[in-house]
Amino acid sequence: MERKRGQQTVFFKNKPIIIGHYSLVGPKEGKGPLRDYFSKIEEDDLFGQKTYEKAERTMIEQSLRGAVENAGIKFGDVRLFLSGDLLNQIISSSYAARSFDIPYVGVFGACSTMAESLALGACLVDGGHFDTVACATSSHFSTAERQFRFPLELGNQRPPTSQWTVTGSGSTILSCKGHGPRITCATFGKVTDYGINDVNNMGAAMAPAAMNTLIAHFKDTKTKPEDYDLILSGDLGKLGSEILIDLMEDHGYKLGLNYKDCGQMIFKRNQNVLMGGSGCGCSATVLNSIILDKIIKGEYKKVLFMATGALLSTTSSQQGESIPGIAHAIVIEGEDNE
Amino acid sequence: MERKRGQQTVFFKNKPIIIGHYSLVGPKEGKGPLRDYFSKIEEDDLFGQKTYEKAERTMIEQSLRGAVENAGIKFGDVRLFLSGDLLNQIISSSYAARSFDIPYVGVFGACSTMAESLALGACLVDGGHFDTVACATSSHFSTAERQFRFPLELGNQRPPTSQWTVTGSGSTILSCKGHGPRITCATFGKVTDYGINDVNNMGAAMAPAAMNTLIAHFKDTKTKPEDYDLILSGDLGKLGSEILIDLMEDHGYKLGLNYKDCGQMIFKRNQNVLMGGSGCGCSATVLNSIILDKIIKGEYKKVLFMATGALLSTTSSQQGESIPGIAHAIVIEGEDNE
Repeated sequence: MERKRGQQTVFFKNKPIIIGHYSLVGPKEGKGPLRDYFSKIEEDDLFGQKTYEKAERTMIEQSLRGAVENAGIKFGDVRLFLSGDLLNQIISSSYAARSFDIPYVGVFGACSTMAESLALGACLVDGGHFDTVACATSSHFSTAERQFRFPLELGNQRPPTSQWTVTGSGSTILSCKGHGPRITCATFGKVTDYGINDVNNMGAAMAPAAMNTLIAHFKDTKTKPEDYDLILSGDLGKLGSEILIDLMEDHGYKLGLNYKDCGQMIFKRNQNVLMGGSGCGCSATVLNSIILDKIIKGEYKKVLFMATGALLSTTSSQQGESIPGIAHAIVIEGEDNE
Repeated sequence: MERKRGQQTVFFKNKPIIIGHYSLVGPKEGKGPLRDYFSKIEEDDLFGQKTYEKAERTMIEQSLRGAVENAGIKFGDVRLFLSGDLLNQIISSSYAARSFDIPYVGVFGACSTMAESLALGACLVDGGHFDTVACATSSHFSTAERQFRFPLELGNQRPPTSQWTVTGSGSTILSCKGHGPRITCATFGKVTDYGINDVNNMGAAMAPAAMNTLIAHFKDTKTKPEDYDLILSGDLGKLGSEILIDLMEDHGYKLGLNYKDCGQMIFKRNQNVLMGGSGCGCSATVLNSIILDKIIKGEYKKVLFMATGALLSTTSSQQGESIPGIAHAIVIEGEDNE
């Protein structure tokens, strides 16, 4: 049977079901506006470990185990673990996978990783290759800062366009059976580069990729922004979101009040985060808390979740390269939305 | 319809077809025993670029374009590009993807990446999500050395268990239509760690993962080693291969003369490579040259291709962690093998 497809969008026949989700965050996120929605807030940002890197993999372990429990299944029912993160060679994910007895596929899309792993995982469940898969990602402020920027001990000033890496991990369990919201389609993004080379302005670097993926999605699905209860970007932050709104308007699409950005939702204005939250854990924890909760409660019927990633490394920046971005998107619909 | 499945193995109903392949290597590999099989040997290991990192992404660009040409399709016919590499934040793949107008999914499995991208790509083609996908990976001796070990200018001695990172990129085009060898099943591996922490002994770190995946594969498919014309590991090297043979024998499986390792095939003994070749590009270029050529010619009817990866980073090593390994495997059968 021929599957319905767009240029970049895959439509799911079997509509994978989100049967479990979990969000784990650090102390700063736990003081933010979403504190009542997270599955768990940990006051110790070392999560009981000796290093921040070991803390980050502990976060993935805890969030995946939490999601499995939330799904009401046994750990052994999960047949594949898809995960990635910002650390070199995605060690948070790989070392977390070491503690699970599950086949593992490492993915990398920088801060788009939650959407990438969900889009891929949904294909694998839809295609009947795996009954149940787990999708996860994480980020940690202190591991990201010391890998990508400066040692925290230096106390560097942060430029006004910078964002604050979220300490958090989100996990989602997808299955071919059970109850919960459904992933109905996925739009895979292309790498887009408008020549931004300011590593402290990720929002501007990622906004063009977000625009490309949104336009591809609307064309492929023959929908308009107003067809969604919520259009959610990952971590464009205040500046990046404004750029996206402008870019979309240039192309005839008006993003209205139903457009939100996880990076602007996760912290309060007085939390000294400048343009807002960022990191793989930003969209992962927002999706796996307030958003899925509200879809399950019926407050949102149809959500377009798009996470964006900046595909740079310290080496590429040192060699004078600009910052390419990518964005992947999925549509999540409430169980009763037919 | 219920799909046939094993614990870790996915069987393909539509058996994705390898319609094109390409291998591009550097000068040292071009002097090795497989020199007559590679699609292209480049004498300049900078590939015309200013830095080795830019060289590596150029290699992926060239190898993918070569594979598309080899497939006899238009570049626009490729609907998804799956790629990853050893560099931090897989910049070789992401920056190469910037030059293609194709949706991109970044993957990471260290030196198992060719098998990972082919296994995932085969699922996506088999499931009908994409008609045609491209799978690629690369490695470069000089980018790997300076990222993972020491500046080349130091002229460090290499311990006897070390391997030599292959400078090369391989690309494979999978499609639901056309002619060529078929991928009939894929076994997804689990992260395995036997506590090896010598970063100059990757073969020993990866062999236990290879064993786990091979045993899972034989059990899931109800086959034995002698059922394959060739069982090919990625880059275990001389020591790692010997460990794998021993480990398999302990579990009642005898790997015979039909077992080979790409790391031992790609260089001559007098090329000063100690235990042999390594890096994502090792298995990628061997598979996409002599192996696929021989399958197409009918010399091999059924090949089990398994690439292994060591999932460490410099940070994990500095923090005293052991080295987890992973191995993914696919079965490739000749077009006329029914």
